[in-house]
Amino acid sequence: MWEFNMGVNSLRVFTVKMRSLAREIWSISWKVGRDDPRRVIHSVKVGLALSLVSLLFLLEPLFAGIGKNAIWAVMTVVVVLEFTAGATLCKGLNRALGTLCAGSLAFLVEFVANESGQVFQAIFIGTTVFLIGSFATYLRFFPYVKKNYDYGVVIFILTFNLITVSSYRVESVLNIARERSYMIAIGCGICLLMALLVFPNWSGEDLHNSAVFKLESLGTSIEACVEQYFQDMEINGDQSSEDYICKGYKSVLDSKSADETLALYASWEPRYSRHFRRKFPWKQYVRLGDALRHFGYTTVALHGCLQSEIQAPRFIRAMFESPCTRVAEEVKKVLIELAGSIRHRRRFSPSFMSDNLNEALQDLNKTFRSQPRLLIGSYHAHEPSNNAAEPNEPTDQNQRNESESLTSLSSNKIVGSTVAIKPVGEAQLKQSERRALRPTLSKKAITGLEFSEALPFAAFASSLVEMVARLEIVIEEVEELGRVANFKETSPDMEIVVSNDIVLRRREVEIPNLSSQGVE
Amino acid sequence: MWEFNMGVNSLRVFTVKMRSLAREIWSISWKVGRDDPRRVIHSVKVGLALSLVSLLFLLEPLFAGIGKNAIWAVMTVVVVLEFTAGATLCKGLNRALGTLCAGSLAFLVEFVANESGQVFQAIFIGTTVFLIGSFATYLRFFPYVKKNYDYGVVIFILTFNLITVSSYRVESVLNIARERSYMIAIGCGICLLMALLVFPNWSGEDLHNSAVFKLESLGTSIEACVEQYFQDMEINGDQSSEDYICKGYKSVLDSKSADETLALYASWEPRYSRHFRRKFPWKQYVRLGDALRHFGYTTVALHGCLQSEIQAPRFIRAMFESPCTRVAEEVKKVLIELAGSIRHRRRFSPSFMSDNLNEALQDLNKTFRSQPRLLIGSYHAHEPSNNAAEPNEPTDQNQRNESESLTSLSSNKIVGSTVAIKPVGEAQLKQSERRALRPTLSKKAITGLEFSEALPFAAFASSLVEMVARLEIVIEEVEELGRVANFKETSPDMEIVVSNDIVLRRREVEIPNLSSQGVE
Repeated sequence: MWEFNMGVNSLRVFTVKMRSLAREIWSISWKVGRDDPRRVIHSVKVGLALSLVSLLFLLEPLFAGIGKNAIWAVMTVVVVLEFTAGATLCKGLNRALGTLCAGSLAFLVEFVANESGQVFQAIFIGTTVFLIGSFATYLRFFPYVKKNYDYGVVIFILTFNLITVSSYRVESVLNIARERSYMIAIGCGICLLMALLVFPNWSGEDLHNSAVFKLESLGTSIEACVEQYFQDMEINGDQSSEDYICKGYKSVLDSKSADETLALYASWEPRYSRHFRRKFPWKQYVRLGDALRHFGYTTVALHGCLQSEIQAPRFIRAMFESPCTRVAEEVKKVLIELAGSIRHRRRFSPSFMSDNLNEALQDLNKTFRSQPRLLIGSYHAHEPSNNAAEPNEPTDQNQRNESESLTSLSSNKIVGSTVAIKPVGEAQLKQSERRALRPTLSKKAITGLEFSEALPFAAFASSLVEMVARLEIVIEEVEELGRVANFKETSPDMEIVVSNDIVLRRREVEIPNLSSQGVE
Repeated sequence: MWEFNMGVNSLRVFTVKMRSLAREIWSISWKVGRDDPRRVIHSVKVGLALSLVSLLFLLEPLFAGIGKNAIWAVMTVVVVLEFTAGATLCKGLNRALGTLCAGSLAFLVEFVANESGQVFQAIFIGTTVFLIGSFATYLRFFPYVKKNYDYGVVIFILTFNLITVSSYRVESVLNIARERSYMIAIGCGICLLMALLVFPNWSGEDLHNSAVFKLESLGTSIEACVEQYFQDMEINGDQSSEDYICKGYKSVLDSKSADETLALYASWEPRYSRHFRRKFPWKQYVRLGDALRHFGYTTVALHGCLQSEIQAPRFIRAMFESPCTRVAEEVKKVLIELAGSIRHRRRFSPSFMSDNLNEALQDLNKTFRSQPRLLIGSYHAHEPSNNAAEPNEPTDQNQRNESESLTSLSSNKIVGSTVAIKPVGEAQLKQSERRALRPTLSKKAITGLEFSEALPFAAFASSLVEMVARLEIVIEEVEELGRVANFKETSPDMEIVVSNDIVLRRREVEIPNLSSQGVE
């Protein structure tokens, strides 16, 4: 009875486990399909292509005679039919080229071998197989061959060996080869049909969307980064938002090899869309990807300021919150607008953007000018400056205040320098102890440094400025892309809805130059 | 006669062209082999394996009967034998697994199909082929399957289709399947023999060497970067050294996918060396790679300061040349020492390093303290401060000067603030015009900003400090690697020759704490 209960129990446990496993597999399957519904279509396409090829076997009356070699068609379909049209074309043409070259060479070898006796023939074939195999394998290490024709060389080796070695046994090699070529041609034909005509997926399209996605994720990443920098310290350590920021720029920085593969496949694709009057400009997309990675490094630097062991004191950050946030917002706007222009295949006209960005920069500059004590040394955290110009204050008032601030600033500075020169006080040491730091080696060394309080903020601001400088390069590449890909022109008054709820241009017009008039 | 001359001429041109082409191919071949001589060995191995497999065909008396199916052995060798042992094992086991699963399923399907009539059988087989093909293809999109078993699923689809479809025509499917399995087993056996026993290349070894290489190239990149930053502006634009710096960190940043592939293959490899008492710690190498990329981003930030549109004036940089160079040198030393410890498979003991690094940081700190005016606003470039403490000045004198400098600094600061508040002067505008800038949109905006002169330097210094902070993470990962991989312990007095001419430890002992005694 007890044993029976044990059995029932373990059966129940097993059932529960199997059920949870099944549920997990189902949820993964669902996610895979939801992330990219084209995957489902592609799977059905492969199934269909295989069924079609199987007909060669099954419908004997139609394909009498060639049925025996039909496995080559099956093999071709399994190996050649890839997710995108470009990849299928690349593999199919590689296979065709490899087979052709190998066939020609093999017949040459057979011709020589046939002229001699059985033993010499065996030695000759063995030697040839060794030499051709070695040379072709070595060829695969050539960077150019590796990039474009790796699969072709593999097929070359395979076909050459099969034909040469078979020829030793079989008399009618020519017949066999011809039949196999037919089969491979039929297989390739079905693959190309499926890849190019039935719900085709284009690598070029993927490359295009990846560029849009990268621009957008950089934009949101930057905004989230700057937002979090100016939040309170407690919320600062929020892991989920950290992950969110990371994910945004990581996807850009790690995109190099994926981009290059897509570009390679895209280079094999024919002109597939009315959008491209010329060949698909895959080279320009690769260049844009490079520019985006170059730009992305500044996002990493910005995020590095968030993660840094040493943090600028809260009050320093509070002073610069408004102008920094504004610059970040403007950068994000430009990125989103760039993404939108690529998505809708229209030219990007930078004339609207640059003004706002410039004003935001001037704004940041103004705030810096009103805080000249910044890198003097360590402030006392409880001594926020009274004469700090409010970042949003109208400029004319700022200019009126200049003579007053001159005197007050200079007196302030003497206080600042006293703080800088006196040795590290007790209060400061406690403050640095309070910081949640990993117990690392040079921790003491780094936090003990007196320049460390304002320096991180300077790095943050400098990263922002550098980001704007590199944004220019991105804009240039997008404009070049618009020219090369013949995107449609936009009129300056056009109002463009970038996403569901943001009307970018209109907002930019509506927001008056709040705080940045007449800086110079 | 004229036509004959034409013919001779064009023949001569053709000969010259062919000769230069041959020379080029030869030089590429030579380079490919010289870069990694294992490539030559691998090519010969493939040739040898193919010859061995061809013997199945050629030596009829030995292998009577199975010769006809020997093409499967040839196919297996061509497809499975890869450059490293791990890759070969991965592919070979995937192939075996895929064949086994497909075979079992195909027999099940055949069993059902055989029970019914010809027409139903055809429909049943067609449907099964479609369903299995679709499901298996969909399975390839699962991230876990894609990473580990992609090739296995392809082979599964291939084998399943071949057996199922053949079974419709041929009676003795079981026999065919058995013979093919033998052939595939022989092919896999030859591949494993070649991959594991004849001059094996280990992915784990590659991963190990790549970690060493990355550490070293980061070190040289950082040193070159800092060196160039403090060089004269004219030499600053030197393209070759720019490329040199870029190459160093780019190889680290772009290593993610290569690392992961190597780690995947390494995870298939058996314990191959007496160095590893447990399984090869490929996971830890991947983590180290992540840490190195995280560290590498600071190198990018540092290099960004070199390439930046806005440059700190020469005299500001000159002030900080010595301490910054020292920090960079110490960081490089630590990186080279880390690389050495991994190369020679010994534990890294950070006790020696940290002191020097700390001292270098303190040195930088001291210099900052002696220049408290740094971010006050825009200096005049022709007005180097007279009371700036020489970076290499002994410290005790520095301390004696403190009371003097207090007064002079404060007066200086008033000058500084005047400069900061006055509008951009003509001289300054000219200076910004003189800078060689790309004609970009916000160019004027960025260079016109007044904080721009000292801010870039603050970013540079901050990147250096951040670099030291992240170096800790790299050191931790290397120490963890030492523990996990059971590297041998080193005694503290041991003197280690890191490269041909550098005796690191000794130098560190010999150099007295030149300028950084008693900072606190």
